[in-house]
Amino acid sequence: MQTPLKIAVVGSGLVGSLLAIYLKRAGHTVHVYDRSPDIRTIQFSGRSINLAMSHRGWRALDEVGLGDEIRQIAIPMDKRAIHIVGEPLAFQYYGKDGESIYSLSRGLLNRKMVSLAEAEGVEFFFETKIWDVTLADATLHAGDTERGEWNELKYDKVFGADGAFSRVRHRMQRQSMFNYSQEFLNTGYKELNIPANEDGTHKLDKNSLHIWPRNDFMLIALPNLDGSFTCTLFMPFEGENSFEALKDKDSLEKFFATYFPSTIDVIPDLVADFFKNPTSTLVTMKCYPWTYSDKVALIGDACHAIVPFYGHGMNAGFEDITILNQLMGQYGDDWDTIFKEYEISRKPNADAIAELSYRNFMEMSSKTADAKFLLQKKIEKWFSAKHPDKWLPLYSRVTFSYRPYSEALAIGDQQKAIMDEIMQIDGIEEKWNSPEVEQKIIELLS
Amino acid sequence: MQTPLKIAVVGSGLVGSLLAIYLKRAGHTVHVYDRSPDIRTIQFSGRSINLAMSHRGWRALDEVGLGDEIRQIAIPMDKRAIHIVGEPLAFQYYGKDGESIYSLSRGLLNRKMVSLAEAEGVEFFFETKIWDVTLADATLHAGDTERGEWNELKYDKVFGADGAFSRVRHRMQRQSMFNYSQEFLNTGYKELNIPANEDGTHKLDKNSLHIWPRNDFMLIALPNLDGSFTCTLFMPFEGENSFEALKDKDSLEKFFATYFPSTIDVIPDLVADFFKNPTSTLVTMKCYPWTYSDKVALIGDACHAIVPFYGHGMNAGFEDITILNQLMGQYGDDWDTIFKEYEISRKPNADAIAELSYRNFMEMSSKTADAKFLLQKKIEKWFSAKHPDKWLPLYSRVTFSYRPYSEALAIGDQQKAIMDEIMQIDGIEEKWNSPEVEQKIIELLS
Repeated sequence: MQTPLKIAVVGSGLVGSLLAIYLKRAGHTVHVYDRSPDIRTIQFSGRSINLAMSHRGWRALDEVGLGDEIRQIAIPMDKRAIHIVGEPLAFQYYGKDGESIYSLSRGLLNRKMVSLAEAEGVEFFFETKIWDVTLADATLHAGDTERGEWNELKYDKVFGADGAFSRVRHRMQRQSMFNYSQEFLNTGYKELNIPANEDGTHKLDKNSLHIWPRNDFMLIALPNLDGSFTCTLFMPFEGENSFEALKDKDSLEKFFATYFPSTIDVIPDLVADFFKNPTSTLVTMKCYPWTYSDKVALIGDACHAIVPFYGHGMNAGFEDITILNQLMGQYGDDWDTIFKEYEISRKPNADAIAELSYRNFMEMSSKTADAKFLLQKKIEKWFSAKHPDKWLPLYSRVTFSYRPYSEALAIGDQQKAIMDEIMQIDGIEEKWNSPEVEQKIIELLS
Repeated sequence: MQTPLKIAVVGSGLVGSLLAIYLKRAGHTVHVYDRSPDIRTIQFSGRSINLAMSHRGWRALDEVGLGDEIRQIAIPMDKRAIHIVGEPLAFQYYGKDGESIYSLSRGLLNRKMVSLAEAEGVEFFFETKIWDVTLADATLHAGDTERGEWNELKYDKVFGADGAFSRVRHRMQRQSMFNYSQEFLNTGYKELNIPANEDGTHKLDKNSLHIWPRNDFMLIALPNLDGSFTCTLFMPFEGENSFEALKDKDSLEKFFATYFPSTIDVIPDLVADFFKNPTSTLVTMKCYPWTYSDKVALIGDACHAIVPFYGHGMNAGFEDITILNQLMGQYGDDWDTIFKEYEISRKPNADAIAELSYRNFMEMSSKTADAKFLLQKKIEKWFSAKHPDKWLPLYSRVTFSYRPYSEALAIGDQQKAIMDEIMQIDGIEEKWNSPEVEQKIIELLS
């Protein structure tokens, strides 16, 4: 057991709320600060992409007994449903034996997490703006405005779970030897909506993550409990097919009629939603170190914000908590070691999932529509079924395993080199599941 | 001619002062702000690496007629002098026909530049702290402390020439879609000193940049006008041979006796200077965009801080001014276009010199002591002399030409691939200047 401490968590998002529960369970007094109002009291913003919870996320919830409660608001998706103009809908299964990722509304989940944390005895302070942190003594500085009066809030430890634009990190950035990068994609996104049928059922297959892959841009849709789908249009800001180019009702409708004709009937409020909802940016943020002495630690998006194309932002943040909690169990009151081991073990994995997420835009927006890529996936699945000890596909290692992300990236690169060679085999389309191909893969693996 | 404007330059360093002169000459009212006292009134800090001015830097000075005045305080260095334990001193010439880089004291040069700017009619405001900038209307916010009272200083344009930790950029960083990275090396540096002989002459060859290459670490020395040399020890912060390991007089003296025995006699104040002078960090900083509308622009280290191993930090910053000035001549009052073209044309070159500088640590600290590398340099020089139209060595293209840095990087990579192949030739040591080798290079070039 650890000596009970007074701990502040900045940020009441998913990672902040769950971390607060873990810290409370470990016997600490936990205060959570957020500059926004209580999410349970407000309308959602129209700029969220639905979450896809997978193994790593569930493990963090199950460890504190919350998995089952959250499963009640989650919808399993065991496959991609690929929409290509002029072709029948095609399903691509994610894993084996019904392995699924789970669609969750970010807002709904966050409300639930805050309530669960409160029930545990965590105290929340909403609409409280933290402008700065004194790192050396874990003191928060809160006030109404950045240039106004501030008051000091002294803690034993501070966790920065305040997202990609973290104020806690902002202070750490000013330290010497603090490595930092933020890189925005030229692709942005906008939320759209497919409402439920009148009887409350879903208009599209409920247990699929729907993708309309169009190379430079794509539309995706994830199911909600109420029969609707939250859609996200990913598209460049500028250029031929871009947010800039869709400047009025006419250009928008013409664009959707050309590229997404099958959505016309199911997105009735296209024009209104498109021009009402904001166009949001996508950023990859990396930094190091993540901790300051035994006083302050960053967690989740605050230290590793990634683009959403692997659906692992929340999963990676929840895994931070799992690892931190393991280290708390291992090292007790030695917070110096806990923080040091935490950042050393998590950093390469955060970098790896950032890279995998960045690459996955190409996979989702282009390759899912490519026959050669689908054949490759089929070969991998076939070989993996015959030799599960020799081959775990990259997607499965990332999503349906607890193996480190860094391992997934490295092994994924090896597998890619092997598959590039296999796909060169003459007549691979016909003999993809032949003993010759099987032998060749085994040979290349050794 | 441009319409006269009221322009603020934040930062009175080398780039800020020279930019101010250019802007004044173009007819503008120019105010320069600096948080530090007037450099002409203070002692230098003991943390500077001497500058190595080369073609790009001289061009910017000559364009406004200042080159000759600065040449009077510059010492030409036409070669590297390599110090290896147990071997005679070896000279490696930088270019051909006496092409030289020029050693300059940063402090001395900066003092001179401020005086020259003042003589032109530029107004300087020292010890004036700029904490923030309102980008949309080019307004500076100055005050004694970050959290105290500020007053507003309104301009037509603001230039941020305030270095790697620029406050002007700091405001731009908070914009969406602003890409930014800062990466610190694990290697730091410390200034040491080789005093003059009693008669004012130099203790080592005056017209050389001296290097004691020791792989992970190295010592360098650049000549000063007064007969002394400014030395810089580059070394990892942690590890076997590191700043951390040199914690007392004994360990320091033992280290120097082992690795730099030839310096013992010429660095008399080693122990005192080592423990008095700070250990400084080395950072590469990249960002984009560099401008905000037609109101604010970053220049020099404020938008592209690089490590010092190519000696091009100041040269690159001065070249920013050359390009900006060309665009001012070309586009007149169309500052939107001036700023846009400026950042588009300079960004790839800033990235290229950052990469070249990063790589050059290896060249200086390891390769200069490697016989194979020296042979390669010899072959390049021989071939270049025979075929000047076909081969300009990378170092010369960077240092003794005005070709874009990005071109130098790209062509340098091609040349490296060719030389890698040439160095594989059996018996290259004997036939390095044979017709066979000459033909092979010509063949690989086409």
